[in-house]
Amino acid sequence: MSPATVFERIGALRSWLEAHRVAGRRIGLVPTMGYLHAGHASLIRRARQECDIVVVSVFVNPTQFGPGEDYDRYPRDLEHDQALCEAEGADAIFAPPVVEMYPTGAPCTRVTVARVSEGLCGRSRPHHFAGVATVVTKLLNIVQPHRAYFGEKDYQQLAVIRTMVADLNLPVDIVGCPTVRESDGLAMSSRNSYLSPELRARAPAIYRALCAGRDAAQAGERSAGAIAARVKAALEPVPDAAVEYVEVVDAESLAPLQEVGGGAVIAVAVRLGGTRLIDNIAIKPVP
Amino acid sequence: MSPATVFERIGALRSWLEAHRVAGRRIGLVPTMGYLHAGHASLIRRARQECDIVVVSVFVNPTQFGPGEDYDRYPRDLEHDQALCEAEGADAIFAPPVVEMYPTGAPCTRVTVARVSEGLCGRSRPHHFAGVATVVTKLLNIVQPHRAYFGEKDYQQLAVIRTMVADLNLPVDIVGCPTVRESDGLAMSSRNSYLSPELRARAPAIYRALCAGRDAAQAGERSAGAIAARVKAALEPVPDAAVEYVEVVDAESLAPLQEVGGGAVIAVAVRLGGTRLIDNIAIKPVP
Repeated sequence: MSPATVFERIGALRSWLEAHRVAGRRIGLVPTMGYLHAGHASLIRRARQECDIVVVSVFVNPTQFGPGEDYDRYPRDLEHDQALCEAEGADAIFAPPVVEMYPTGAPCTRVTVARVSEGLCGRSRPHHFAGVATVVTKLLNIVQPHRAYFGEKDYQQLAVIRTMVADLNLPVDIVGCPTVRESDGLAMSSRNSYLSPELRARAPAIYRALCAGRDAAQAGERSAGAIAARVKAALEPVPDAAVEYVEVVDAESLAPLQEVGGGAVIAVAVRLGGTRLIDNIAIKPVP
Repeated sequence: MSPATVFERIGALRSWLEAHRVAGRRIGLVPTMGYLHAGHASLIRRARQECDIVVVSVFVNPTQFGPGEDYDRYPRDLEHDQALCEAEGADAIFAPPVVEMYPTGAPCTRVTVARVSEGLCGRSRPHHFAGVATVVTKLLNIVQPHRAYFGEKDYQQLAVIRTMVADLNLPVDIVGCPTVRESDGLAMSSRNSYLSPELRARAPAIYRALCAGRDAAQAGERSAGAIAARVKAALEPVPDAAVEYVEVVDAESLAPLQEVGGGAVIAVAVRLGGTRLIDNIAIKPVP
């Protein structure tokens, strides 16, 4: 457990990084919105294994929240985040104030990613992925890491970032890391902290429903509609759960599928009480 | 005059650059659409003075041309471009085929720059600056230069790129270089090659009109409308010249002005016969 330097300013972080860069050290970036949990810890640990210098960014990015979403109440705890980063051996935390990232207020420049941003969460959050793509471009340009680490739990986000990095020739390797789950199967998320104990007890139904869909596919079901119906049926009895979507999509393009065969993913968004939770599970290609 | 290596592939260019980068050499990029003239030569010369390694990119970018514009007939002559680059001491030419820059066809990812893209040329060419911003982001990510050089002749393009670089924290210094003119005042442009001898003889009227506007401002005229009217009046008698716009704008934000006082620019677009020409001139701030 070594101290991790906290940087609030882009210039100071860049100067510090430059010394490591000219010394030939490999830099890893773990972009987060903070309120770190075991899922983030797994990303930091992976970066620690693969890179000489590990930077964790902690920034609740206002431009990826829509009106009426939870920007203001999104949980924040930099002291806890710093302790977790140090426990996992991160070298630096980049925790800029909003004005450091957006000095002129709403920026003129936006990075948009068509197609892969449009389905799934993009339908109910139409500007979300442009906000994500823009801030991730900024973070990648600020840190200039060799590798950047993202969780597969936010599967569409990972696909958007992979597409953007390829399209814009960003000089970075994007590493997707497996979803980390609570012992009852609930995917780790900072937003789980919104759940009352009662709703928290019901939340594992989401992963169980995804497993039921995946198991149906593994048992030979090829119809995407039938697989999605299996997942919906498993969610229907859960009190206070409103399904926003259940979709079976191509694992790379996220295009909706009629039949599964190649790599596919079942993705869901569910409102449990007032809390919107997302999760997903892979369906292996038919051998 | 030393040979300049021509690269068609991103991977080969990056490997070659990496060796220079680890040796601590400063890299300059001059992005062009080829058919190089004395204006481009001045950019290469400036880069040669300021950088250890000078890369000239030659790429006629399809995504910045609208339907019915001159993408297909845009002049191309790589042999001539290579000779000019070598005469000016460039070290490398990056001349990728379209499929190298857009391997999947039309890319999902676009970089858009609001406000500064919207007036002037943005009105008649609504997707032009998104195409420019996207391809320049790609070129900057491919070459990762310390400095990149652009001509002030394409004034709005330069402003769009400066805004984008600031907003996205791209780690590069953007250097704007003065417009180079023919001896009769016509701004150098690859598109001048479209002009018949008759229209070519009339084209210097554009710069003379800009000078008339600038002189009026220097003589004390503060009204942007009156300055623009002076320019329009000077262009009206030119046969086959159709003014697309004459505007007096803030030198940084490109916002239209009512009165000049701080740094301002008079910008024009004129169709001469079938050829669209642009030019601009600075109005110095009132002391």
